[in-house]
Amino acid sequence: MTKRIAIIGAGPSGLAQLRAFQSAAAKGAEIPEIVCYEKQSDWGGLWNYTWRTGLDEYGEPVHGSMYRYLWSNGPKEGLEFADYSFEEHFGKQIASYPPRAVLFDYIEGRVKRANVRDWIKFSHSVKNVTFDDGHFHVTVKDLPNDSVSTETFDHVIVCSGHFSTPNVPHFEGFDKFPGRVLHAHDFRDAVEFKDQDVLIIGTSYSAEDIGSQCWKYGAKSITVSHRTAAMGFDWPDNWAEVPLLTHMDGKTAHFKDGTSREVDAIILCTGYQHHFPFMEEKLRLRTANRLATADLYKGVAWVDNPDLFYIGMQDQWFTFNMFDAQAWWARDVIMGRIGIPDRAAMKADVEDRIAREDAGEDDYDAIWYQGDYIKELIEETDYPTFDVEGACMAFKEWKANKKKGIMTFRNHGHKSVLTGTMAPKHHTPWKDALDDSLEVYLQN
Amino acid sequence: MTKRIAIIGAGPSGLAQLRAFQSAAAKGAEIPEIVCYEKQSDWGGLWNYTWRTGLDEYGEPVHGSMYRYLWSNGPKEGLEFADYSFEEHFGKQIASYPPRAVLFDYIEGRVKRANVRDWIKFSHSVKNVTFDDGHFHVTVKDLPNDSVSTETFDHVIVCSGHFSTPNVPHFEGFDKFPGRVLHAHDFRDAVEFKDQDVLIIGTSYSAEDIGSQCWKYGAKSITVSHRTAAMGFDWPDNWAEVPLLTHMDGKTAHFKDGTSREVDAIILCTGYQHHFPFMEEKLRLRTANRLATADLYKGVAWVDNPDLFYIGMQDQWFTFNMFDAQAWWARDVIMGRIGIPDRAAMKADVEDRIAREDAGEDDYDAIWYQGDYIKELIEETDYPTFDVEGACMAFKEWKANKKKGIMTFRNHGHKSVLTGTMAPKHHTPWKDALDDSLEVYLQN
Repeated sequence: MTKRIAIIGAGPSGLAQLRAFQSAAAKGAEIPEIVCYEKQSDWGGLWNYTWRTGLDEYGEPVHGSMYRYLWSNGPKEGLEFADYSFEEHFGKQIASYPPRAVLFDYIEGRVKRANVRDWIKFSHSVKNVTFDDGHFHVTVKDLPNDSVSTETFDHVIVCSGHFSTPNVPHFEGFDKFPGRVLHAHDFRDAVEFKDQDVLIIGTSYSAEDIGSQCWKYGAKSITVSHRTAAMGFDWPDNWAEVPLLTHMDGKTAHFKDGTSREVDAIILCTGYQHHFPFMEEKLRLRTANRLATADLYKGVAWVDNPDLFYIGMQDQWFTFNMFDAQAWWARDVIMGRIGIPDRAAMKADVEDRIAREDAGEDDYDAIWYQGDYIKELIEETDYPTFDVEGACMAFKEWKANKKKGIMTFRNHGHKSVLTGTMAPKHHTPWKDALDDSLEVYLQN
Repeated sequence: MTKRIAIIGAGPSGLAQLRAFQSAAAKGAEIPEIVCYEKQSDWGGLWNYTWRTGLDEYGEPVHGSMYRYLWSNGPKEGLEFADYSFEEHFGKQIASYPPRAVLFDYIEGRVKRANVRDWIKFSHSVKNVTFDDGHFHVTVKDLPNDSVSTETFDHVIVCSGHFSTPNVPHFEGFDKFPGRVLHAHDFRDAVEFKDQDVLIIGTSYSAEDIGSQCWKYGAKSITVSHRTAAMGFDWPDNWAEVPLLTHMDGKTAHFKDGTSREVDAIILCTGYQHHFPFMEEKLRLRTANRLATADLYKGVAWVDNPDLFYIGMQDQWFTFNMFDAQAWWARDVIMGRIGIPDRAAMKADVEDRIAREDAGEDDYDAIWYQGDYIKELIEETDYPTFDVEGACMAFKEWKANKKKGIMTFRNHGHKSVLTGTMAPKHHTPWKDALDDSLEVYLQN
């Protein structure tokens, strides 16, 4: 009997998984029956922008954390699909830090061509996944029809991402702060904060980029409060980095060093939780956000039941191309092309990855570590080999450019590791480019 | 064997249910074993203010829709507990439209005295309720410990409210609106909208009161867009009522009558859903927000399985005292003091209530209809009789006062239907009273 595979989510990870199976079918292989459940009404995951925050039209938590005016914060040369270059999609090379709409178009282009949309049940939210008698039982809510049903599968591949459930700490005085307190997850449009004194808590990419957005769209000042260390970039004049917030007193923010300042809005860039409430406890991934996740053999197969896979659950330098490498690998395990060792060997693999990550000293070690991981997976499948080292070098240039100018790094171009073409310099410096539409970006 | 009862929620309805059982025990009756599950870390339901919006610290939808500076929008004389007057709680009569903190204190006062806090499992979110083999199986997540367990009960009483899951419509152009779009559920502090042109969609109490809050705290203008009819109060000069929004074009709102205006923020006061995702389909209440709910015998017992109860699921003129009347009644069914007729008779009861509600012509009919409903329930239990007619009259005065002055109706006092005491006029007109603390309010 044909195996049945459930894929949870049709964002970059889930779409990678669909493309992996479709590419095998295109080469003549017999593939399992695939059902992909997507909570949103369209594909693209986080790249499918919504104005909604909090709960959606069905009372479900809004998945998206995407905001308007977002441009890629890393070079596209580090995430390019090895089987579908930017040049192939756009018919020309484009600049290196595309806005959301451009990346969405690129992600969609590959899967449109692969013709996998019919495999996806949109507006279907997975509510419960259990395992017994050798099978997975997946309970799904059809949101528009408000009906619940359960189907049985041989494998489940969790592709629901880990940037949708915010980690939201409390600080004393938030309950009396006369203004908006929000998490980055609910940030949508920087224009809302024009002329305001904005306090940002955190030093993650969200802090760096949302602060930069607010600055670009006219915030009066940006104050970033850090727990451990300042980001240390060469910020604009109306930007400050300060120690951790101790408490709010009305509009006044007090910091650990005894200083204080008045603010109009507070944005918590305090990270996300790996949150899989729909997975029964014995199947539920519990991991820190790191390069070597807990309990996943090869970073993908659930050690306690390797018929279950998680894609893209790592902290990420590489993104789309890493999800691809993982999806091709999971596909080949499911199709019997790759064997899974015994539990002890899987545990040893996990431990070894953790130890090697822990031995790294800096971001460069981390980038190369993740590059090596991708190479390792690719070697076991027919995912096209690409110049992973070249992508690591693009990340290295990117980091250097950020140090030189945090508001100018996106003005640089990098070389495609697939086609060897240099990306053109974008026609407008990022700080002056207020229109983030696809049409305007592609006018190179 | 002692019966086991699960109560879902420790807001006004759930606390009424706890007090109902406790009062029977205090009179010497043997009562069932009670377990009340509350998702939040404290009791009070909506009256337990949180600054959080969207998802909480555990990734659960935030229950609260409460905002800062909320004062009761109806006279407290219409909601007074018949077994615990405001005078008993505060040691004196207080003014008629208390702010949140005062009402929270009052709600809490009764259940503190009843000593029922130990019956409540806080930070426990009910995930699934099923019924088979004559019992309910309630699956609950202990949020801080991230663990799930299932217990069996003879009865379930759903007290989770119906003002927590927003109804959020889409309008064209929301995805490109450069500002904040939020539902009333996520509204927290009116000061955020100071000096802004605010667009409100809807004509519910949320629209009326959130608009008034924004006006009171310094919004530049309030525009309220209605689908059917304007609210028609004598609004301040910087307030307008307009037909339904057709679409947004940038910051410009376009309305059905062809007019348009620029706005800075959009607040959707578009109501709430009766949303019980934790109830299996065959137990799940599906009803419009009306006085005569679908499928509840006496407005309380689930027709298809009268071991299951829903408290407070009606559209509401009466609130706390109606929840009490329902809770006492449900208690007496569970304790065998009140019998349940056959299914046909229950269905006939539901149909009759619907027909009688539909025959009403205006708000006054609706108020008296709900008053009669409360009297009907009270007559069957030992809940203290009170002057329901007097409470109806307080609502009538209130409505007249609102017509006379929508920004001044809270300056009036009404007579307690328990003690006969007139409420004092508040020391400060509502529009000038910017401090909503309990201490300041009680300085009468």
